[in-house]
Amino acid sequence: MFENIERTSLEELGEFGLIDHLGRHARQVNSATVKGIGDDAAVVQVDGRYMLLSTDMLIEQVHFDLVYTPLKHLGYKAVVVNLSDIYAMNGTPTQITVSMALSSKFTLDAVEELYAGINLACEKYGVDLVGGDTSSSHRGLYLSLSALGTVDPDKVVYRSGAKPGELLCVTGDLGGAYMGLQVLEREKRVFLEHPEMQPDLETHAYIVGRQLRPEARKDIVEFFAQNGIVPGSMIDVSDGLSSEILHLSKHSGVDFVIYEDKLPIDQDAYQLAIDFGIDPLTAMLNGGEDYELLFTLDQKYFDLVKNNPDITVIGYARESGMHNQVISKSGNAHDLIAQGWKAL
Amino acid sequence: MFENIERTSLEELGEFGLIDHLGRHARQVNSATVKGIGDDAAVVQVDGRYMLLSTDMLIEQVHFDLVYTPLKHLGYKAVVVNLSDIYAMNGTPTQITVSMALSSKFTLDAVEELYAGINLACEKYGVDLVGGDTSSSHRGLYLSLSALGTVDPDKVVYRSGAKPGELLCVTGDLGGAYMGLQVLEREKRVFLEHPEMQPDLETHAYIVGRQLRPEARKDIVEFFAQNGIVPGSMIDVSDGLSSEILHLSKHSGVDFVIYEDKLPIDQDAYQLAIDFGIDPLTAMLNGGEDYELLFTLDQKYFDLVKNNPDITVIGYARESGMHNQVISKSGNAHDLIAQGWKAL
Repeated sequence: MFENIERTSLEELGEFGLIDHLGRHARQVNSATVKGIGDDAAVVQVDGRYMLLSTDMLIEQVHFDLVYTPLKHLGYKAVVVNLSDIYAMNGTPTQITVSMALSSKFTLDAVEELYAGINLACEKYGVDLVGGDTSSSHRGLYLSLSALGTVDPDKVVYRSGAKPGELLCVTGDLGGAYMGLQVLEREKRVFLEHPEMQPDLETHAYIVGRQLRPEARKDIVEFFAQNGIVPGSMIDVSDGLSSEILHLSKHSGVDFVIYEDKLPIDQDAYQLAIDFGIDPLTAMLNGGEDYELLFTLDQKYFDLVKNNPDITVIGYARESGMHNQVISKSGNAHDLIAQGWKAL
Repeated sequence: MFENIERTSLEELGEFGLIDHLGRHARQVNSATVKGIGDDAAVVQVDGRYMLLSTDMLIEQVHFDLVYTPLKHLGYKAVVVNLSDIYAMNGTPTQITVSMALSSKFTLDAVEELYAGINLACEKYGVDLVGGDTSSSHRGLYLSLSALGTVDPDKVVYRSGAKPGELLCVTGDLGGAYMGLQVLEREKRVFLEHPEMQPDLETHAYIVGRQLRPEARKDIVEFFAQNGIVPGSMIDVSDGLSSEILHLSKHSGVDFVIYEDKLPIDQDAYQLAIDFGIDPLTAMLNGGEDYELLFTLDQKYFDLVKNNPDITVIGYARESGMHNQVISKSGNAHDLIAQGWKAL
């Protein structure tokens, strides 16, 4: 039944292809469904409000490695990843549910550590843990979270709203979580060969923290509200900058130009990339899990954001058909290429 | 790190204990959160409406066996199980999300079969598939669904609303899904020993269907609305009648008496139980997955339900402290005992 040719086609389709493919068959019958598959969160109308619903799975050995991931951090990150999708709609998260399947290797203490992190993130972001489901798994830990949020109908921001001439902006810095992962993987290899050695993580605390315990950009969504800013389009950087830019491009029907010398990277991440023999540009373009916000802005907002140290203008949107490109420091234009189905 | 004594304590705590235990630490900060952990679905206030949110995980070899579960049926059932939680709050489901993790043994054709079932259930129940997440798993298929619904604030029904003197009612019949599972497991054993034999499922089509492709009681919630009935308390029968009665008892602070001779069972399920050497009462009390509704009713509603063939009065609620009991056909009283953490 499971022939090789079909197996290959599923792998080739990849995550994005699969979601698109399956989404094609989804018909919508409820007039309350404002936006279904295809954005960071679904949008549902309730009276005069929009509710947002997002969902994410985190799987041991696919999304995290418990050799170097403290369970408390994992719980915290699982919540943050989900809330980031709500912020990417310019919304405010309000409730989450947490479902988990766990194998018999997990103790009650371990599960409590996980929930300590979940509760800590809930407190920090002001969301309530309102439900979930618990089950056994045959191997490892499976987490599935859903987040509910709200947004005013005139403030909701989709992937599809970018217009030619808008500025492309990103928050914080890029590539840090990816370089943090490289450090953790290196220390894991060292540990497996020399269990008596202590891992050297303190020197790279910032980028290791970016990988293990990221934050979502609640502050930026609040900054938008305080300054009367509504981005044209927005997405969170979970799979890598290139991939997210291509999402905005596809959904908005515009192309983007970005400039290598504008891309924000942490100094330690930059140096480590060189030490690891990785082009820092590659780390910024293709390293995922930074959970920053990528958005386009009408130029009228430029004066409001130019002095915000957490927002960097990295390029602009232009008419479709001119390719999505990065202009290197030496002035050469390279087409942006997506990274698919990501795994450790 | 993972010592035996702790491992035991997690298993002993079981699913219900674990959810309760973890829920203890969940503080609520959002005034919009009307009801958090501890019911079939969470309740969130949005302006003058209540939104409902429920979530369920379905895991291969824990909740289903693909040897005898067609993927289309599995997709259909996964949706139904989730919607049943929304109906159990007297609500109307409106949207679902579907996340899945699948191993490399699954082909694109297989995933499309699964989604054909998901889409069929969405169509039948009038809900929209609005999002999800796709990932790889190391072994088997993991499904995690969330459902959104709505309910009028004056119509929402909790597990906690039962009052002494109310009638205890159940919809449809009980134990069928459990006996269907016994038939499927028997045919699987026969098939593994004699692969040339065709499984005999047609003779038991009704109960096998109860296991493989259950329905949720949308019709009953509509019947309540048409007749101005609001149950005192309600829960869906997913883990078995005994377990659900004990939930209502605990949350409402009342005890229940039910009568064996009132419990509804399908004739084929009854006969099969005898053939399998299973007490039909045990099948009805402890066999799960019927996805019927169990609810209490003020006696003033009795005339409205007594002629509904899909509703059976099986007992009543009384003051707490008198035990939850089943009165057997011979007139003896037996305490109801919960079944925990259920697995194939």
